[in-house]
Order: sequence, then C-alpha cells, then structure tokens
Amino acid sequence: MNAVTEAPFRQKAFRIPEKMKAWVLGDPDQLSLVEKPVPQPGAAEVLVRIDAIAVCATDLEIIHKGPPAQIQGGLPFNKNFTPGHEYMGTVVKLGPGVDEYKVGDRVTVEVHAGCGRCERCREGMYTACLNYGKNYGEMDKGHRANGFTTDGGFAQYAINSINTLAHVPADMSDEEATLIVTAGTAMYGLDVTAGLIAGQSVVVMGPGPIGLMGVAVAKALGASEVILTGTRDNRLEMGRKLGADYTVNVTKEDSVEAVRRYTNGGAHYVLECSGAPNAVNDAAKMLKRGGRICLAAFPSEPVPVDIANLVRNNIYLYGIRGEGKSATHRAAALMAQKRFDARMIHTHTFPLEEVPTALRYARERIDDAIKVVVKMNHSEGY
Amino acid sequence: MNAVTEAPFRQKAFRIPEKMKAWVLGDPDQLSLVEKPVPQPGAAEVLVRIDAIAVCATDLEIIHKGPPAQIQGGLPFNKNFTPGHEYMGTVVKLGPGVDEYKVGDRVTVEVHAGCGRCERCREGMYTACLNYGKNYGEMDKGHRANGFTTDGGFAQYAINSINTLAHVPADMSDEEATLIVTAGTAMYGLDVTAGLIAGQSVVVMGPGPIGLMGVAVAKALGASEVILTGTRDNRLEMGRKLGADYTVNVTKEDSVEAVRRYTNGGAHYVLECSGAPNAVNDAAKMLKRGGRICLAAFPSEPVPVDIANLVRNNIYLYGIRGEGKSATHRAAALMAQKRFDARMIHTHTFPLEEVPTALRYARERIDDAIKVVVKMNHSEGY
Amino acid sequence: MNAVTEAPFRQKAFRIPEKMKAWVLGDPDQLSLVEKPVPQPGAAEVLVRIDAIAVCATDLEIIHKGPPAQIQGGLPFNKNFTPGHEYMGTVVKLGPGVDEYKVGDRVTVEVHAGCGRCERCREGMYTACLNYGKNYGEMDKGHRANGFTTDGGFAQYAINSINTLAHVPADMSDEEATLIVTAGTAMYGLDVTAGLIAGQSVVVMGPGPIGLMGVAVAKALGASEVILTGTRDNRLEMGRKLGADYTVNVTKEDSVEAVRRYTNGGAHYVLECSGAPNAVNDAAKMLKRGGRICLAAFPSEPVPVDIANLVRNNIYLYGIRGEGKSATHRAAALMAQKRFDARMIHTHTFPLEEVPTALRYARERIDDAIKVVVKMNHSEGY
Amino acid sequence: MNAVTEAPFRQKAFRIPEKMKAWVLGDPDQLSLVEKPVPQPGAAEVLVRIDAIAVCATDLEIIHKGPPAQIQGGLPFNKNFTPGHEYMGTVVKLGPGVDEYKVGDRVTVEVHAGCGRCERCREGMYTACLNYGKNYGEMDKGHRANGFTTDGGFAQYAINSINTLAHVPADMSDEEATLIVTAGTAMYGLDVTAGLIAGQSVVVMGPGPIGLMGVAVAKALGASEVILTGTRDNRLEMGRKLGADYTVNVTKEDSVEAVRRYTNGGAHYVLECSGAPNAVNDAAKMLKRGGRICLAAFPSEPVPVDIANLVRNNIYLYGIRGEGKSATHRAAALMAQKRFDARMIHTHTFPLEEVPTALRYARERIDDAIKVVVKMNHSEGY
Repeated sequence: MNAVTEAPFRQKAFRIPEKMKAWVLGDPDQLSLVEKPVPQPGAAEVLVRIDAIAVCATDLEIIHKGPPAQIQGGLPFNKNFTPGHEYMGTVVKLGPGVDEYKVGDRVTVEVHAGCGRCERCREGMYTACLNYGKNYGEMDKGHRANGFTTDGGFAQYAINSINTLAHVPADMSDEEATLIVTAGTAMYGLDVTAGLIAGQSVVVMGPGPIGLMGVAVAKALGASEVILTGTRDNRLEMGRKLGADYTVNVTKEDSVEAVRRYTNGGAHYVLECSGAPNAVNDAAKMLKRGGRICLAAFPSEPVPVDIANLVRNNIYLYGIRGEGKSATHRAAALMAQKRFDARMIHTHTFPLEEVPTALRYARERIDDAIKVVVKMNHSEGY
Repeated sequence: MNAVTEAPFRQKAFRIPEKMKAWVLGDPDQLSLVEKPVPQPGAAEVLVRIDAIAVCATDLEIIHKGPPAQIQGGLPFNKNFTPGHEYMGTVVKLGPGVDEYKVGDRVTVEVHAGCGRCERCREGMYTACLNYGKNYGEMDKGHRANGFTTDGGFAQYAINSINTLAHVPADMSDEEATLIVTAGTAMYGLDVTAGLIAGQSVVVMGPGPIGLMGVAVAKALGASEVILTGTRDNRLEMGRKLGADYTVNVTKEDSVEAVRRYTNGGAHYVLECSGAPNAVNDAAKMLKRGGRICLAAFPSEPVPVDIANLVRNNIYLYGIRGEGKSATHRAAALMAQKRFDARMIHTHTFPLEEVPTALRYARERIDDAIKVVVKMNHSEGY
Repeated sequence: MNAVTEAPFRQKAFRIPEKMKAWVLGDPDQLSLVEKPVPQPGAAEVLVRIDAIAVCATDLEIIHKGPPAQIQGGLPFNKNFTPGHEYMGTVVKLGPGVDEYKVGDRVTVEVHAGCGRCERCREGMYTACLNYGKNYGEMDKGHRANGFTTDGGFAQYAINSINTLAHVPADMSDEEATLIVTAGTAMYGLDVTAGLIAGQSVVVMGPGPIGLMGVAVAKALGASEVILTGTRDNRLEMGRKLGADYTVNVTKEDSVEAVRRYTNGGAHYVLECSGAPNAVNDAAKMLKRGGRICLAAFPSEPVPVDIANLVRNNIYLYGIRGEGKSATHRAAALMAQKRFDARMIHTHTFPLEEVPTALRYARERIDDAIKVVVKMNHSEGY
Repeated sequence: MNAVTEAPFRQKAFRIPEKMKAWVLGDPDQLSLVEKPVPQPGAAEVLVRIDAIAVCATDLEIIHKGPPAQIQGGLPFNKNFTPGHEYMGTVVKLGPGVDEYKVGDRVTVEVHAGCGRCERCREGMYTACLNYGKNYGEMDKGHRANGFTTDGGFAQYAINSINTLAHVPADMSDEEATLIVTAGTAMYGLDVTAGLIAGQSVVVMGPGPIGLMGVAVAKALGASEVILTGTRDNRLEMGRKLGADYTVNVTKEDSVEAVRRYTNGGAHYVLECSGAPNAVNDAAKMLKRGGRICLAAFPSEPVPVDIANLVRNNIYLYGIRGEGKSATHRAAALMAQKRFDARMIHTHTFPLEEVPTALRYARERIDDAIKVVVKMNHSEGY
C-alpha cells in the first residue's frame, strides 16, 4: 500500500491505495480476510470506498450454500469472491464517460445491474435479467450482482455500475444509508403489486427487516390500514413504531380472522415476507376478492397451496427479486424526507475485521439482532 | 300458454308465451323439467329467448355440488334455480330504458353482471364483484351470474342484464355462438396476464374447451409460438388445427424440456387450463425469468407448489374467473372476422328435452365429446 | 314542514321534514331560494342532509352558462335544478338494499355516478360515462352528476348514489370535509398520469384550489421536488405551506428555466391547473423526455400548441374530468391521516341564505377568497 | 480493398473488405459517395452488411436540416455522417461477447439503442433516452441512433448494437424486410396507446407508409373497425387492400361525421399519421369520451388545439418517437405469419449509386412513390 493515485474533490482528495482488505469466500463457510488489488472502474462504473455494510439473511445463505443461481445448479460455486450487498460508501474514482456521479458523492447501492441487452432489461425489468450471472470470461454480457455473482461489500472498495447507485442525503448516517436497499425491496414489492396504495389496506406478513420496512413504506405512501403479522411481540412492537395500525401475533390469535375484522371484510394487498409454509394460503384468505399478494420470501421446500382459492377469488401473486424499477431511489427519497425512522431496525455494529462475528450475530439473532452493520474505519484521507 | 304479448320487430313479432319450459335443480343431482312463468325484464335488462346452450364442466359441478360460492360455504345450496350459462338467443323484450339492444337482436352472453357499486365493480373488475351472490331479497345488490346464482339457460327464456350481452354476427350459427363465452374466457386470461402477445410465445396447458380456444385466440392475436400440452393425441391434433405451432403429449415426453426447446430457453406466458396437480410447478419451469402464468383451472385439493422458484424467477400468477373486461366482445369480434373456426370443438347436439343426456355426454366424454350443445326447437313466431 | 318521518340512530333520530329550502336555477344567472319536497332515495341511494358545501369555479360557470355538456350543445339548459357539487353532510335515510352506509354517517361526495352499463363504466372509467346526462325520462340510464345534471348541494337535502359517497373522519370539521373532493381531483390526476410518484418531481401549474391540493397530495405521496408556478405571491406562499419545495412567480422569472434548474434537467410530471393559453407548451418544455402532463384545466378558446415538441419528446397528455377511480376515498384517507392541512384554503363562510354572496366572493375573489364555504344551520334534531 | 478478414458460417464465409462505399452528408443537402474504412464492432455490437434500405421522410428532413435534436439546437449539425435508418442486411462479424446473433443471420433494424443507464432506459422507454445523441468523445454514453446521430445505412456496411436487431424470416425478401421498422412504428403506437385492440375501433389519419402499416397492423391484431382517412383516393384504396374496413377522403366528406357513423358514436383510438394542422382537433371529435390519440406525426408549426375538448372528454394523447418496446420484433412476427402484405407499399427500387435519385423520387412522390428502396448489389462472397 505505498503507491497511490489521486482524485480531486472540493478541497479534498482521496488517496486510493493499490491494495485493499477484503473478505473472500473459499469453500462453503470459508471466509478469509485477504489483501488484494483495488479494482479499476470501467465505462459506466465508479470505484466506491465502502463506508458501511449491513448483513442480510441472503448473505448467510450465500456464504453457506452459494448464491441462488448456484443453488439451482445454474452456476458453479463462486469461489474467491467477496460477498455482501447492502453497502454504502463514497465515490472515489470515476470510470470513463461518467458524469452522473462525482468523486466525493455519498452513495448507496442496489444489487442488480442488468445486462441491458436481454428482453427483460429492454423492458425495464432488470432484476429478472436473462443474463443473470453471465459476467465473466469471453461471454461477459454485462450483468452485475455485487455480493451475488460479482465482488460485493465486505471489503474496503468495490466497483459499481452507475445503474446500481443512489445518492445518500448529507444528513443521513452511514448506518441508516445501508438500510435504503431494504426499504427499496419493500417499495418495489408495493409498486409491482399495488401501485398507488393511499387509502387502501396492506398486510405485511413477517417482521424481519424487509417486512418492517414494508410497514414503514406502506404507511408513508398513505395506506389506510397497515397490519403486521408475526410471532414475536417485540418485533411487532417495533412494527407499531414504524407505523403499523394493527399487529397480530399469529401464535396467539387467528391472523386471517383478525385481518378480515380490521379491514372490514378483507385486505387489498399482502406483502409476504415470512416464508412461512402456509403463508400463501393465509394471505389468500386475508384478501378481498381480486386482492393481490407480493411474494418477497419463500419457504425452502414446496408447500401445499390451495390454487382453487386463488382462481375462485381472482387473486394475483407477484414473485419479486430484489429492488427493481429504481425502487432504491424512491426509498432513499422517502427516507431523506424523514417519513420513517429506518434506524430503528439497526441494532448492532462491528468493524470490518469482525465480519464473522457480525454474521454470527445476524444468523443466531444474538441479543435480538435485526440489522447488524459493519462500519469501516478509514484512515484520514482514504 | 294462451295469452301472449307482442313485440314489434322489422316485419316480425315475437309471441311471448306466459309460461315456459325450464330445467330446475332441486336437491343435488335432481334436475327436473318444469313449466314456469316467463320472467319480465327490469331496468337495464332484456328477455332473451334461448336458442342454444353449451354444456360447461362447471355446470356439471354446480348440478352435483352447487356453485363455487356455495361449495365454499358462502351461500346455501341454490334450490329451484335453472343452471346453464353458455347460451345464446334472441332478444324478445326490452326492459325500461333499454336501447342498447333491439327486439330481434341475436345475442350471446357472459356470466357476470357485477353489482356496479362495490369497489371491484367500480374499478372495472366485475368478475370479482364483492357482492357475488347477493341478488335476492331485501338486500339485492344487483349482482347476477346466470346459471350460478340466478336462473340460467337450460330453459326457453332468461332475463339478462344488458351488461352480459354481446351481438352475434348474422352469418354465425347458433351453435358456434354458444362458444363465444369460452373463447372470451381465454381472451380474458391473455388480456390480464399478457396484453399484446404478438411476436411472443404462449404455452397452453390442457386441451379442454378453454385451452383449445386459448390456442386459437393466442394465434389470432399474433403469438409467435403457441404450444399446447395435454395427454390425448386427438385433442392435441385438434389444437394444431386451431393454430398450435407445437403440441406436447405429456405422457410421452418431458413438457418442460420440450417447451424450453421450442421457445429457445423459456416461454413468455403459460395459460394453465388443465388443473393438473403439478401444473404451476411445470409452468414456472417452462417460463423465462419474469414470465407469467394465468390460472384458468385448478386442482380440487391443495397441491405442493415450489414458491421459491416463483420468487427467484420473478414469476407472476393471475387467478381468473370467467370472462371479465368485456372479453366476450373481443372474442366475438375475432370469431366474426373468421380468425379461427371454433365450431371444431362442437361435437354433439341435443334438444332441450334431453338435457340430462347432454350432461351425461359431457361428463363421461362419451364419443369423445368436447362441447355438447343443446339446441332449442322454437315453434314458428316464438 | 309539519309531518316528519323518523330514522333511528345511536340514541339519535333524524326528523326529516316534507319540504326543504333549495336554491334553484331558472334562466342563466337566475338563482332563487325556493321550498320544494325533500326527495326520496331509490335503490343504491341515500338521502343526505347537507351540512356544508364549497363553491367551485365550475359552479359559477354552470350558473352562468349551464354545465359543460350543455355548453357543447349536448343537452338543453337544465332549468330548475339545484347547482352545487362540493358538499358534505349526514346520511339521514337509506334507499332499499343499502347497508354500505348507516343513518348518521358523516359523508362527503364525489360528482360522478356512472351509468354502470356503458363501455367506460364497465372498465372503471366512470367519469367518462358514455351516458353522461342521460338521467331523466324514459331513457334514464342511471348516470348522475349532482350539481351538473341532477340536483346538487345548495339545498338542505340531496339524494346521492352510494357510489358518490366517502366517509368523513369523526375529527374532521364539516368545512374541511367539503375540500376532500378538490383533493380527490388532484389525486385522480396524479394517479392517472403518474402512479407512484415517491422520489419523483412534480410541477403544479396554477395555485387555485385544485393546484394547491395538488401540491399537498403530491408531497404527501412522497414526491421529491414539488414546484408550484403562478402569478400571485400570496398563493405561492400558501403552496409552500402545503408542501411545495419551490415556487415560481411566472411574472418575475422564466418558469421553464426555473423548473429545469430545480429538477436537474426536467421534471417527471406536470399537473396543469392554470388554464393559461401557453400552459401545454410550457409544460412540455419543463419535462424530461418521456414526461407526462395532466390537464385538469383548460383555456376557453383553442390555443396554439407545439405538437412537434410533444412527439419528439415522447410526451403524454391526460385530459381528466373530476375525481374518478375512487380518488376521493384516497384523498379522504390522506386527510384523515393529517398528511396536510387542507383547511388552509378555506377562507370564507356564509349561511345557506347567502349563497349569492358566497358565489360573488368566489367569482370576484373578494378579500382574496380561495374556498368559500356555505355552512348549514340545522335546527336540533334535523 | 485488398486485405480481407474471414468469418466462418455454415459452409460459407463472408469476405469483409477494408474499405466500403458510403454516402456522407457534408453541409445541408450535400451528399457524396465516398470510400471509407469498414468499421469494427465493439462489445454488444455486430457488423451488418447492408442488403437493402428504404427511404423515410425523416431521411429527407435530416439531409436538408439535420436530425430532430439538431433542429432543436441540442446538437451541432452532424457533418460527415451517413444517413439512412430503414435498412436490413446480413450479420458478417460479431463483436466481443455476442452470441445472440450468428454470422450469416439476416436481420432488420430499429433506430434506437438507448444508453442503458438513464432513467428512461432503465424503465424500458429507450426511445426517449435522456442521453440521446451523446455518442461521441469522452462522454460517450452509449446511445446510438443510426442514420440520426451515428452512421446509418446508405452504405455497404454499418455497425449495429444487438439491441437494434430483429431476425428476418428466410422466406421474406430483402425489400419487404426494410418495411418491418415502419410496421414496428405503427405497432409501437398501438401498443402504447391502445394495448389489446381486438374488437375495438381504430381510426388511422394519413395514408403515408406508417399510416398504411398502421391499418395493416391494427387489422391483424383484430380491430373491429379500421377507418383510414386521407386526401388521395389511390392511397385510400391501398389502405382498403391492407385491411381498412372504411376509408374517408377528407376532401370529399366530413371525416368526423363519417367516423362517428361508422363507429356508432365514436371510435376507441386514433393513430394520427398525417401531421395535418387540425388533426388533433378532428381526432378528439372522432373519439368516444375516454378515447385515446397516438401522435406519430406533427405539423411543422404550432397549431390551434381545443384543449377544453380534450379535458371535457377525458382524452389522452401519446406522443411517440420511433419504434420502442421492441415493437419491430412484434411487427416482424406478424409479417412472418403473413398477416398482411407490406410489399404493397414498396413502389420503386434503385442501386446504391443512385441514392440521390431514390431520395428525389421519395421527396417529390414521382410516379406516386410510397416506399423507395435502395438495393445493394453485393459481389459473390461479400
């Protein structure tokens, strides 16, 4: 780490080292902290100095089993890559042709940069890119999913397509900014499934991070009744603080009956974030005829579904991945407007060196951890 | 049948008798042919002299178990009503304020007349009317579903809301006109799920009447590849004649693999009309990422569904009932333009007196019956 | 006013008189206060005791020239009807089959009850009902537009289709509740034109009541930049209080240049509420390529429009009438949630007897009147 | 032209010369045929050997005044570029990472390759790319519009982004394939404006190439009534052959009255391809309430528009550019299915050397020219 390049910025220059620290995944569950070269941004890319990164349940799964596409057999286990996708940081270097961001800009990220050339990307549905994972070798199609198929954020620096960036407001902390992508996922689900929800009723199943952000976003967008269902009272209580009008502890009462009562006969939308085996069946029963379900979580095994009920009641289901349709920008805007306090779900902080501990807190929900954030400690000028 | 009223029409008058013959459902499976008064049309209604009616699988279910809403416990078994919903006929009397149709017009019907006052009707989704079945007594909300909750077409006359009518072209036979509602259901499914399908690929699962009409409508709308899957070669052959580019006998080859091959990696849409237990899972595997499934049929019991696969691949599912969004008008237009020959699926014809035989042919698929039509034999001037 | 009927309600009964006071329009500009029978609600209707009504600019036009359809020659001048459409009140009697509302419910209204049988109503676009104005005589199609084609609210009682009602929260004043329909119009325009606007930029042209409510609704829905343009500084100041991030006095600066600067190159949407002759051209120049304009106002004469600019820049224009798609329910929900303080635009109040004065204040903007409200003074028990 | 490179293809190799003939635009109206290097395809690009190219009215405008963006002052006059955008040809070389097309594939083109990084491209609206014209120098954003801002098809070879290609069926002539982009523009307009048009009525104003293809596409998609308006009987007659149910010569009868008669009170959609000064006003009067207008042409100067009529009747207008949403693929599919005979509008053919004559025939409509095609004469093996 001796030679450096310099980038000018408002009375400030970022000294970019040649090498950086990064956690690298070897075999399953084998994470090691290594030193590797700081990468260089290409066209439509920037180099981001990572300032903070949150742990997502998907990280735990990837580290243990590989990314979803690999689990399905579509790709080999992606050895020697750096996981982590819920990060934010500072732009420190621009690739050729980039003026959408400036050196020094604080940015947060979304996961998916589509290839831009497949049928889905061409219609704006880039999280369903048909070239998912095709990002290396001679047939690089341009798809990027940092922390999934390309290097992510448990490191000091990362390369990002400008399509994956959103600005972070000046008065928002690094830790809060890592949560924008989580709120963006909830926003995307509500956008695809429901559109304008002002004055309508939304059930959120599952008070995990996406569910809790779903409550907050739904209420910020003007939903009339927001009902959160779950099994843990403290999480439900947090949902109330984030705007839920009603909460239902499913271990104590019949959630279908409760929702139908609170909504006077059936809700408009369900945002399913629990992955519970009976979630789709329950959701369908909670809805009015013609209602809609967003699937943002799923059980690990096939589960019995009453399809007849979906058909008889004109119910639509929307499976979503990630945070498409630029939903992170919308979520960032709501958070910049202080519509809800996402910081509530941030519970623990660790330094980069302690990533394994951070992961363990998240996995084992130690000390009732919700969002565990890894915060970088940059030396002056880096 | 002595006193009659007269209605003027282009050199022609319809003599409407006071009484008519109608099949009436008593206890489950107890159909009897009775004589009852010809009903009178109210505001926004007409009296239709029924000229022909096709047997639908749902009729068999209703006669055996009651309409869907009753099966679910929402309504009492609807004793003493007349089943049958796929009929066509001639307008013979207008209710007050009706000038949308004239006496003498040949018309076909769709099932659902929404209440016009619930949230769903107000947004145009009238097949998901929230007042389904509320059509009698003091709290009549105006919903009508002839053959489901109100008197249907196994009779000489029926009252229809003008919202349930579409014109029949002059050169179309009565028998063919009974099939418009079936084509309309397929049209509705494609409209909701897919929109403009020209140049895209559509899989139709299940070569029953709706599936076969789905093939014909999809091809008429310009779909590039239409693939029909099923178990019976003669039905698949009929699908080819109606426009299917490819057919797959699922007892002989792997339909998922075949579809992926024919579509170069995955189809755009699946119209599921089979009700097979694994249909949703197979459909999801047949699709590109971001593909969509229309559920127009369903298995009678809950079945295992791989929800993870739906979520990971951004798949949307649309449960549909009937033929909403005025799809019968669109189907009638395509058939008037001779875009496909729906008559191919009409296999048998019986007179009104032989409704039980017609039902038996349909139920037992005697002589490979597809669409069994009951054709009325009106005396001159009636 | 001697005989009365009684309706039970939570320890309370409404004594409905046989006759009521109502303002009636004779020849143009000839309003007189008469006594006429209290009307009776039919199926799907209720009798509303009017508690307050706001004056709309359209009322002034109708009283002077007749309703829009008449101006266009479509209908005769509607003599002897009661104008006024922005009212709220109390349900005092239910028509047959009504259980959606109860006697005693406080309600506000929207204007349009579609016929429920035309093509537009059947697709949910009831403000564009093809049977507009067909509400009398033998060919009554069921369309109602109180204050436009049927009796409105400058009276003690009115009949309303339940489709035109929305509940008023208990803690909202009568005066504020009259403004829900105005906010609903802005909501409808944003819904049709823009959908989910969180994080996007909206220009509102014209700080009249709809424009000011447009600012409030856009901000409540999470728009990032809301820019209000107009000619009067005090109105613009009010816009700021309702949430506008920026205001532009078009007599002092170039509004196109200002908007492009505030939005970093062009806005996403324009809600045009000014009716200014050059509004469409200015709006098009304020937008990014692919932007959209909602037309909620219009100049009285044809004006020059640069169509080439619309085509070259992929701009869409949406002409809207009224407050369709149940937008009043959404607006009522936001106001119930205290997302903005609509009361700010209510400036003057008069009793029923002084309707002509109220109209004059509104027409001549006396004392900078924005919303002038007529408030009823009901005797105890009425 | 001595050194060559070779590309393998099914027993066939294309010998690509080092230099090629190309028409180049100097000052306005100064076209010269020069020899210049054959360009090399980059990532996501291919080299297309041009086999045929049609003349579009926009070509004439560009050669005379520069492309639209330049006319508006947004870009300098694009000296030394090759115009022409309605071409087809053969893929002769692949850029890195391309396997979507093979050497030897016959392809047709659409104009716009969006930058893939702006807000519009990210939502799939790539014809409204916010980086239009930014395709050179250090700030190359990746946008390409061959024949508008980058080299087009009046040459022997051109580079194309794979996003601008669609396959040409084996049994379609080169000349017919040049018309796919024209049909694609009509398809795009109908998609954006109307969606599923089966059973609905469409008016096409202006029987130029786009209008005539609009008639053909509308009818192929199942429109019930297609009405073509124009001033020349021979063009209207051609429209009838392409599927118009009715034609109206506006110099001989009142087109508004005629359309309202043919559509029983008003059409559903108008596709405006005439650019006539009163087209928008006439279109609005031809529509039912709630109807929609697609603007695919425009007058050169601002024209008086009756905005009040648009607002009062809930009319929406959609300005479109080009052929977005992959409409060329849809148009190619319909043409491959022989749904209409586009060849009818191809009237004249010239060799590459006679481009100025071809342009003159198109401009002056010599010999009633509609589509004038330039057909290349490739030596064996090129």
